[in-house]
Order: sequence, then structure tokens, then C-alpha cells
Amino acid sequence: MRGEFELIAALRERVAAAGAPQRSPGLVLASGDDAAITARPGVTVTTVDALVEGVHFRVPPFGLASVGHKALAAALSDLAAMGAEPGEAYVQLGIPAGLEDERLLELADGIGGLAAEHAVAIAGGDVTAAPALFVAITAVGHAADQGALVRRSGAAPGDVLAVTGELGGAAAGLLVLEHPDLEAGIDARTRAGLLGRQLEPQPRLAAGRALAGAGAGAMIDLSDGLGADAGHLARASAVRLRVDLESLPVAAGVAEVARFGGCDPLDLVTSGGEDYELLAAVPRDGFAATRKAVAATGLRLSAVGEAEDGSGVLLTGPDGAVRPPRGFDQRRSRDDQP
Amino acid sequence: MRGEFELIAALRERVAAAGAPQRSPGLVLASGDDAAITARPGVTVTTVDALVEGVHFRVPPFGLASVGHKALAAALSDLAAMGAEPGEAYVQLGIPAGLEDERLLELADGIGGLAAEHAVAIAGGDVTAAPALFVAITAVGHAADQGALVRRSGAAPGDVLAVTGELGGAAAGLLVLEHPDLEAGIDARTRAGLLGRQLEPQPRLAAGRALAGAGAGAMIDLSDGLGADAGHLARASAVRLRVDLESLPVAAGVAEVARFGGCDPLDLVTSGGEDYELLAAVPRDGFAATRKAVAATGLRLSAVGEAEDGSGVLLTGPDGAVRPPRGFDQRRSRDDQP
Repeated sequence: MRGEFELIAALRERVAAAGAPQRSPGLVLASGDDAAITARPGVTVTTVDALVEGVHFRVPPFGLASVGHKALAAALSDLAAMGAEPGEAYVQLGIPAGLEDERLLELADGIGGLAAEHAVAIAGGDVTAAPALFVAITAVGHAADQGALVRRSGAAPGDVLAVTGELGGAAAGLLVLEHPDLEAGIDARTRAGLLGRQLEPQPRLAAGRALAGAGAGAMIDLSDGLGADAGHLARASAVRLRVDLESLPVAAGVAEVARFGGCDPLDLVTSGGEDYELLAAVPRDGFAATRKAVAATGLRLSAVGEAEDGSGVLLTGPDGAVRPPRGFDQRRSRDDQP
Repeated sequence: MRGEFELIAALRERVAAAGAPQRSPGLVLASGDDAAITARPGVTVTTVDALVEGVHFRVPPFGLASVGHKALAAALSDLAAMGAEPGEAYVQLGIPAGLEDERLLELADGIGGLAAEHAVAIAGGDVTAAPALFVAITAVGHAADQGALVRRSGAAPGDVLAVTGELGGAAAGLLVLEHPDLEAGIDARTRAGLLGRQLEPQPRLAAGRALAGAGAGAMIDLSDGLGADAGHLARASAVRLRVDLESLPVAAGVAEVARFGGCDPLDLVTSGGEDYELLAAVPRDGFAATRKAVAATGLRLSAVGEAEDGSGVLLTGPDGAVRPPRGFDQRRSRDDQP
């Protein structure tokens, strides 16, 4: 076991070796003092998010690099949901006694790799002993002004409800991960895709900025699951959100995994959570342009319903039947600001 | 057990009831969205700090309110050491299954009470299940410009080394706390004072700003202990720091507790840590004015040594004998930015 300061130095080195930038545009003073100093015009967006061993992941089947990647991704996803540009992140690690430093450095690989992809500077952090591994991230983003950001509260009746990418992959990936014998009749590539959605999700930062720039009225990231997160958005905007279940974009392999796992694929899609796609309310007359702006970032934007007068979320089937959102993930959620 | 959202609402309510401001000058959007939005001119100072049950505290003898207070105090102390004005804090809670929500609300009382004292807005947070209680704080401060802040790196040979307040109280308080039968021959008030230093330390925010304003060249807060923290400052400034042990301001009752506890009072003073006083290097010709500025905040500033050419820390006794810093607190420190 290295000493504390050697460990911190080794972690910093691995984060840098993975390609994370040493500086973000506003970062004046990073690691090594009592605090980091940033100076940047405009407005600042701040969010915190923690992953805890035994609650959000187990090692194995998770590797430490995936834990680091996913913790940072979950926090950056909140910035994506505001339409912010990511800037800096701070990492607090709780380290159990049995965890070897070499394995811990793999966690830095995962954090550094994702930080590199999105040009996020790791500007500070903290290590402490802990009974179980935890990774608590503070992610800070920036925007020119408040008007460039999208809150949960701006959906209006008549807006198109839209979702980026595809849903259900993370939940299906978790089933595959926890049941390696589950031969879902899917090919190796589809299987790897599902595992990737669970282990190393991608925060939709570029799509979030595209949605914000194109005039989305309200936005949230799908961490708890479509049903729950649509509920947050509906409540904040004081509208009802009607979701057309048949129009939901379902990730490849989800139907097969659900069948072999003995569950309803719609539960994985609407209640599985952790897809980290974006759900947005978009004014109807701007929807085509918004879809085009999102497509330019490499993601599909699907219309999946609409906002209307009322409250709550209605999940409606092909015959117009209403389906209540069901719980799939019983973990305490971690994306709400108390 | 309340549901997650009810719990978050109850925590927010208790933080507010304790007097924490709903808004800080720059806070545009607080809790309840994907992230908080702040807008404030000048530079931003950010630090993270976590307290973990079984590592930094045990319950009992700690009460939950003290845990909340101390976690926030430790993070704000880093802002004090920069000379920053505190602005916002974000709170991540890891909650063990056995902990009743009513007790958890006491933690919010402690956070809210200290936040009220220093006009810090609790701008966001996160709750999650965890195997042991942890409180991970992100503290954000502000300053007009970089020049208003003090780093660890600006000490120069000839500077007076100075410390605010009194030392050793937190370590002596820990001994009293863990040995309630320890009859150190101190009166109830002194005993309560020592316990307060351990359980509910005060971040020296006003003194930090006074030191920064009066021209301190380098500064650090005493979380790890004078010996270790002076080492950080010496390394960052590339100077040697000579500490005159006889000049150290010792908290009332420390000598008595050390005698009854069978340890050297100087170990409590130099290696005990958690006093959260400030150690600063002050140009000699500005020292009298600096002391006066700190006195105006209600704290004594003591000259305890000087910076000179060289490296490392020298603790020197009355006969000029050199004493190596000794370890007292074996916990992994939590105030260094990896």
C-alpha cells in the first residue's frame, strides 16, 4: 500500500495518462492546494452524484475502470440535461482496506478516459478510507447565460415529448451482466452493446447542447427510468406527459434479453433506468429542426408523446390503454438534488 | 422509512429551519433540477471533503448534528485557507439501512446551523444507500479576483509563520470523548470547550479573509496537524519552516488531558489535527497590521516561527533542539486534492 500522497500522485498520473486535459478554459489553479480556482464568464452549473459499492455496482462483475467511467458519466449526464458545456470535475474516493492500489488506479483510467472524451479537467478531489468503495463526483459545467440552459420546468401543453438514442439497454445489460449464463439468442456484438450501456454509459452532452440551442423547453436525463423521470419533468412543468409506448426507441437485444429473463421488455424500457438518454419537451413547430440538430451529434431524436394540460405521466398502449409505470430498480435514486 | 423524495424534502426543510439561507448572492437555481445554476462575477473556489463513519467519527459518541456540522466545517475550512468568501455547498449523503430518518434529520440540523452562521446556501445534493454513513461536501466560495486569494505557494524566506486561535483542542477533545471516564482535573467549561473543538469545529472564514486582505503570502488550514500541514506549505512554497514549539498557542485543558491520557501535550498540538485553525506566512513588515486585522475577527494571531531558505519543517524546542513531527492521527487524511 502506497502512502496517501503517493497514491494521490499516482491517481493524478493515471488520469492524465488516460488523456484528461490538465486545464479547462476557466481553470486557474487545480489540484494540490486547499481548493481549486476557476474564472470563467457566464453562468456555472453544478451537480453531485455518488456511486456506492453494493448499491450501484458490485466488483465483479464491474471492473474498476467501469466504476470510474460510470460515476463520472452519471454526473456529466446531469450537465447534459441542462444543455451545459462540461468544464471540471472533482472526485471523492472512499477506499476499502482490501482494495489494492493497483486496482484503484484502474478506476482512475476509467475516469480519465471519459474526462478525455469530453475535455473535462479533473480539478481536485479527496481520498479517504471507507468500509466500501464509493465514488462521489462533483461535475461543473458552463454556459454563456441562463437563457442557454434548459430546466425541467419549461414544458408547455402541445410540446412534443422526445427522447434521444435508445432505451432499455442499460437494464438489459445488467441482466446479462448478472446472469452470464443467460443465452438470450443475441449475437456477441449486440450483447457487448448492452453491456456497454450498463458498464460505460455515455453522457449525451453534445445532444443536450443541441437540444438547448434548438429551443427545447424542458429537459431531464433518464437515470431513474422513463416513467419516474417523466414524472419529475411533468411535476416541475405542471403538465401531463402522455407517452406512446409503441413509439419508444428500444435498444437492440432488449426484447430478446427480456424474453429469456422472463420479464416484460417494456419494464426494462420504461423503468430500468441508467440509460442516460435525454428526455425533452420541444415546441411542436421547432421539432423537425431540433431533430436535425440532434442528428448532427450522431443521435436519433424520437418523438414519443406530448405534453398536455393536467398532471402526471400516462403511458398509453396501442389500443389507447393506460399502463401504470412499474418499478424495476429498487435502489435509492441518486440524481435528485435534496 | 420515508420514500426518497419525502426524505429529501424533509432534509431540505430542516436545513432551512436551522436558518440556512435559501439563496446566496450568486445562486440562480438551487435544488430540484438536474443541477444548480450560479452566476457571480469574479473567481470561484471549489473544494471537496468527505467524512466517513468508522473512519472520521463514530456514532455515538458523535451525535448526528455534530457529524453534519463537522463535515461542512471541514470543507468550509478549505475556503477559509484561500481567503475566499463562502457561497454555496452541496451535500452527498450515504445512508446505512439501520439509520432512522428522524436521526438523519439531526444531521441536517447540524449542516443547516453552520450554513446559517456563515450564510452558505445548500444548493444541491444527493442521497444514496450505503453500508456506512458518509457525508461528502462540495464547498464553493468566491472572490473578486485571483489576487484576493492566498495559495500555499507564496511563502518567502523571512516571512513570519503565524497561526490563528489555539491548538491541540480537537485532539484533546477526542481523548475526552473516547474516554468519558477520563477525569483530567479540568472544569466542566474547559471540558465542554475541548469537546466543542472536536465535535463542532469552526471554520476560520473571517480570519482567512482578514489574512488574505492584509497580505498573507501563503496559507493552509490545520486539518492534518501542524507538522504535516506546515510540510505541505513548505513544499508548495519551496522554503523551510522553522516552528518554535514554545510559542505555540495551546488550548486550555490540553496539558491536563495529555497528562491524564499519558501522552505528550506537544503531540496533541503538533500532530493531532482537526483544529481547523489557519497557518499563514506573513511578510514581517506587515505582521503587526495582519495581527490587528485578525484580532478584529475575534481571534488571536500568534507568531510561531519563520520561513527560511531550505526545505521541510523544523520543530525546535527551548534549547534549540530539533524535534521530528510525530504521528498521532493515523486516519487517511482528507484535505488534499488528488
